[in-house]
Amino acid sequence: MGLDKQHRSTRTLSTGKNNLITDVPGVKVGHVTLSDGGIQTGVTAILPHDGNMFTDKYLAASTVINGFGKSVGLIQVDEMGTIETPIILTNTLSVGTASTALVKHMLDQNEDIGVKTGTVNPIVLECNDMQLNDIRGMHVRETHIAQAIKDADIVFSEGAVGAGRGMMCHELKGGIGSASRLVKINEVEYTVGVLVMSNHGSFEDLMIDDKKLSNDFELPNDKTEEKGSIIVVIATDVPLSERQLKRVSNRAVVGLSRTGAYIGNGSGELALAFSTATKMPHQSPKEPLSMNFLHDDDINPLFKATAEAVHESVVSSMTHAESVSGIRNKTAVSLNDLTKKTL
Amino acid sequence: MGLDKQHRSTRTLSTGKNNLITDVPGVKVGHVTLSDGGIQTGVTAILPHDGNMFTDKYLAASTVINGFGKSVGLIQVDEMGTIETPIILTNTLSVGTASTALVKHMLDQNEDIGVKTGTVNPIVLECNDMQLNDIRGMHVRETHIAQAIKDADIVFSEGAVGAGRGMMCHELKGGIGSASRLVKINEVEYTVGVLVMSNHGSFEDLMIDDKKLSNDFELPNDKTEEKGSIIVVIATDVPLSERQLKRVSNRAVVGLSRTGAYIGNGSGELALAFSTATKMPHQSPKEPLSMNFLHDDDINPLFKATAEAVHESVVSSMTHAESVSGIRNKTAVSLNDLTKKTL
Amino acid sequence: MGLDKQHRSTRTLSTGKNNLITDVPGVKVGHVTLSDGGIQTGVTAILPHDGNMFTDKYLAASTVINGFGKSVGLIQVDEMGTIETPIILTNTLSVGTASTALVKHMLDQNEDIGVKTGTVNPIVLECNDMQLNDIRGMHVRETHIAQAIKDADIVFSEGAVGAGRGMMCHELKGGIGSASRLVKINEVEYTVGVLVMSNHGSFEDLMIDDKKLSNDFELPNDKTEEKGSIIVVIATDVPLSERQLKRVSNRAVVGLSRTGAYIGNGSGELALAFSTATKMPHQSPKEPLSMNFLHDDDINPLFKATAEAVHESVVSSMTHAESVSGIRNKTAVSLNDLTKKTL
Amino acid sequence: MGLDKQHRSTRTLSTGKNNLITDVPGVKVGHVTLSDGGIQTGVTAILPHDGNMFTDKYLAASTVINGFGKSVGLIQVDEMGTIETPIILTNTLSVGTASTALVKHMLDQNEDIGVKTGTVNPIVLECNDMQLNDIRGMHVRETHIAQAIKDADIVFSEGAVGAGRGMMCHELKGGIGSASRLVKINEVEYTVGVLVMSNHGSFEDLMIDDKKLSNDFELPNDKTEEKGSIIVVIATDVPLSERQLKRVSNRAVVGLSRTGAYIGNGSGELALAFSTATKMPHQSPKEPLSMNFLHDDDINPLFKATAEAVHESVVSSMTHAESVSGIRNKTAVSLNDLTKKTL
Repeated sequence: MGLDKQHRSTRTLSTGKNNLITDVPGVKVGHVTLSDGGIQTGVTAILPHDGNMFTDKYLAASTVINGFGKSVGLIQVDEMGTIETPIILTNTLSVGTASTALVKHMLDQNEDIGVKTGTVNPIVLECNDMQLNDIRGMHVRETHIAQAIKDADIVFSEGAVGAGRGMMCHELKGGIGSASRLVKINEVEYTVGVLVMSNHGSFEDLMIDDKKLSNDFELPNDKTEEKGSIIVVIATDVPLSERQLKRVSNRAVVGLSRTGAYIGNGSGELALAFSTATKMPHQSPKEPLSMNFLHDDDINPLFKATAEAVHESVVSSMTHAESVSGIRNKTAVSLNDLTKKTL
Repeated sequence: MGLDKQHRSTRTLSTGKNNLITDVPGVKVGHVTLSDGGIQTGVTAILPHDGNMFTDKYLAASTVINGFGKSVGLIQVDEMGTIETPIILTNTLSVGTASTALVKHMLDQNEDIGVKTGTVNPIVLECNDMQLNDIRGMHVRETHIAQAIKDADIVFSEGAVGAGRGMMCHELKGGIGSASRLVKINEVEYTVGVLVMSNHGSFEDLMIDDKKLSNDFELPNDKTEEKGSIIVVIATDVPLSERQLKRVSNRAVVGLSRTGAYIGNGSGELALAFSTATKMPHQSPKEPLSMNFLHDDDINPLFKATAEAVHESVVSSMTHAESVSGIRNKTAVSLNDLTKKTL
Repeated sequence: MGLDKQHRSTRTLSTGKNNLITDVPGVKVGHVTLSDGGIQTGVTAILPHDGNMFTDKYLAASTVINGFGKSVGLIQVDEMGTIETPIILTNTLSVGTASTALVKHMLDQNEDIGVKTGTVNPIVLECNDMQLNDIRGMHVRETHIAQAIKDADIVFSEGAVGAGRGMMCHELKGGIGSASRLVKINEVEYTVGVLVMSNHGSFEDLMIDDKKLSNDFELPNDKTEEKGSIIVVIATDVPLSERQLKRVSNRAVVGLSRTGAYIGNGSGELALAFSTATKMPHQSPKEPLSMNFLHDDDINPLFKATAEAVHESVVSSMTHAESVSGIRNKTAVSLNDLTKKTL
Repeated sequence: MGLDKQHRSTRTLSTGKNNLITDVPGVKVGHVTLSDGGIQTGVTAILPHDGNMFTDKYLAASTVINGFGKSVGLIQVDEMGTIETPIILTNTLSVGTASTALVKHMLDQNEDIGVKTGTVNPIVLECNDMQLNDIRGMHVRETHIAQAIKDADIVFSEGAVGAGRGMMCHELKGGIGSASRLVKINEVEYTVGVLVMSNHGSFEDLMIDDKKLSNDFELPNDKTEEKGSIIVVIATDVPLSERQLKRVSNRAVVGLSRTGAYIGNGSGELALAFSTATKMPHQSPKEPLSMNFLHDDDINPLFKATAEAVHESVVSSMTHAESVSGIRNKTAVSLNDLTKKTL
């Protein structure tokens, strides 16, 4: 048995042009990867748009699937219904550094923050890469965040790159995965794109192409106690209210469940969804704003596409990853190496 | 010391024409009062508009301040962001009867419910009037709900009427109270109206006009163990998103706190807010909808007005109530009788 | 291709004795089924224990997966952390009747309710069976609820029975399904049992034994617009705090996702979990209570078992159902009939 | 009119020995204050106990009153029901630095973090002190956090100190305030202690001793647009479950409302409650844990005491503050100076 590289089982809908979150117009992604012996970590930046996110925010909402996590910024997202910075992904113990760097990036762009207007809400999402990375060393520097933002582009790598460098998924090599789907709603074609940082799950539960992998393959490593997490970021150009974006982020768990994961105790699982359809100005125009949004009866194609794109993103984070060796001589075998080897 | 009938301390903003929830254009309120010996209960109906709420819904959101309560319908309000029926208030053990009656009312208006379209989400809010009412007797009939809806009008009574007939507030006679405020936002005048069913609080904590009443007056009754609750319904014509309506309903607790209440263990406290600014059609128009909504920087006048109107509504439920005797020869003394008597 | 009746793919853990929710000691289930032409509906009662639930409550928690539903009682469950009545399942428009009947059942058992102590929080969970049932007719009577409670037993039927009589799942005949799993935690064997009322999902998404059924079989009916819902009740004898029970109920969605469902817009999806390990007295003993609970590091076997038992319960609701014809001459084909026929 | 220094109106219950959060046995507080021209900021550390919080956690819960805030750590508190670090308060833009410093403090204490066990969840709570402080300068250093933890003691200062140095409350000088109350529950005396960092509210709304201050005094400054926030930390030795701790933190808003505040749009308001009654071991003992907790019928004295102590803490943050001049020559007048001057 070989792996179906197309993962057709995850697809009932068409993908966007590159099958990446950046298929949603305006979205860009950048990585900084740190790989040096026991240092296997990094930073991934998602730019909802590449202008000034503080002056022109996007509507957003988040879901705490399992709150065993240290991500920051989601409380304000849910209260105010907006994101106002790029979204930074990194390892758990570097969240503070990334927050500081992201704040500085926003201060540089906006002279009025902290003087004539309030502060800024940095979004930093994390997973724990201690299996492969010297996480106690806190090797991510503020400059790495700035660089990841600067390098953001429409085309980007998946797998053992950026913040995903040291992550493990279902006890194999995980990391950054992405996918997109086209949805037609009332004759208009929209895109939903997903990016995940995968670091969760057990090998014995892993389903690929609706087959339990452990029936055919054996993991060379010892069983790892699950200390993982997964971050799901969902972008779309469908016009949605904040409430509806929450409904979209609530569907992330469906895609996660389809690889056999069951939201383990120690797995911090968070989803964040934003729409590029409505720009929200920081300053009040001194009159009511206006937004378009779907009738909820028309939203099912988006829900289904989200579930599919999340599912494929998780699989994609594994199929794009190479095997990586890190701290304490631990090697995370890639899905590709496992299935090749055993064959 | 006499009571200041104007309760000036609760007012820094202008009231609407009648200082009632019905100052919000289109809103109507109707009561059915049952008063016969140990039967001291009733029904109050709030009509957000008097057309067909199922075909033309309003945006809405709710807050569970203290979930020791049996109200129904709020789960769907928060998921879908709409109310699609009149709002019925009654006693705790009559919630089932009121739900059934409200469903029948909606079925009569809408032949397609349960045939060509889905079901309907009845909103029934409750407090426990067992101090004065034979609540075990379940004396509210389905016809009472229909009658309260039919009798709804712009002018309505406060105090020991409708669903408030058997309620007690701060160990005095409580019941239905209402108030409204005018708010000017970006040069446009809007109205926020509140209706409460008050059944909570201890006498020793009660503050009226910023004075602790128990310093000057003595309650003739034995102390009642708090088994109360309070229901707060907030209506406004300010254009708001569902998220913003939740922020408004979250401010109800501020007004409640100003009478000295502290959200007792057994006090089920719920707030429901709706806006009349956007009608939401039941059927999808097969294209995106549009809504106006405030920039959040402009929302503070509404928050302050909500707090004030909730505060005054609670006081008003007491100042408008007469003393009522009910089951087990219990008499709930009214605030007016207490302050007259002791003087 | 035939269906694997063992559904081995859903099982990595041992089942309890009867593979039913009633494998959790003390739990009982009873049905009343109404089947007469266009009347295809009923009532299912789950008794967490068969004593007086009001005087001896169980710790409980709930999860709103998708709040497009009209179930009642969950607000208080989450605030107070207990259930204090049997759990009644029925059709959407009969929730009011079931609430009233359940309240009367509790009043009969407890003379002090509404006199010397507060009221009671009835739990009534629902799905919309309008595809097969004359739901507008509101054919469930209060006596049916009393009968379902009275008939509750350790052995009970699955499929098109009780409240599940008129329900459809993935456009096939659904209804009541149940399963259980044994989990060993720190050398102690516990049971987790699940009962679902399935009424959700599309045929094109349905996965059975990890195979997409629509690849091999064709649905004889026209496509049904999804107006479904699913109710998941989870029982266990594992000692858990209220917070931990919420974590368990949060895992229900994992099992649901494994049949290909994606939490459709109109699908009200709710989970309720309770533990039989700690009885909570209605009256305060006037000193602190005590509870045992797992260290969260030990909880993963329970999470995995919950996901598996929910998954199998959904499948079981279909495999145990017979084809049923109801209102407007609609026939819901059973999974068994579909797979037999097409073969 | 002079100010009643006793603020008797806020007290119906006895205070603890020092009327500080540290009256709860084991709790300590330390400050580092930075005051140099335009630098008016600092750090306050609350130690729930002064041992290793990671190995011996406390049960905890939090409430987001208004989520316009950037505090970190609360998602995990609510999921896992514990705090596992000291609680750090600082200014908004220094949250990243404080997180990093707190992580390093915990790494120093625990060699197994990130090697043999998972990561650690730092709790950093913030308000925006930009009115007086050069917040863009990010003057808080990692060493300041370490120093505040080291200096923590039972006796500590209130007012314009520590993280409260640059904060303003009701447009007067605010900062750190604290209070405690003794509660007798079932003949056992317990303590509830509160510490607030106050930075919210308008002068025109301020109520002190149940009198509106703006009736008698005039603010020398221009009106400040509300960009504030308030942090409330509640400690108690009452045995409580995580659910009950959430109920306690939900009562913080009552105390806040009593100074006339109404949860302004831009005011990030958070409450965190912990109990010292149950130590939760990081490592599973491989058998169920046990906790004591109140019957909810006995919890009202704690709720009332919490409301009172929060109210007094806010007032105390003002009465203990001196006037402070900071960036852009802004002076925050203290309540004492205002009432002296105007008299």
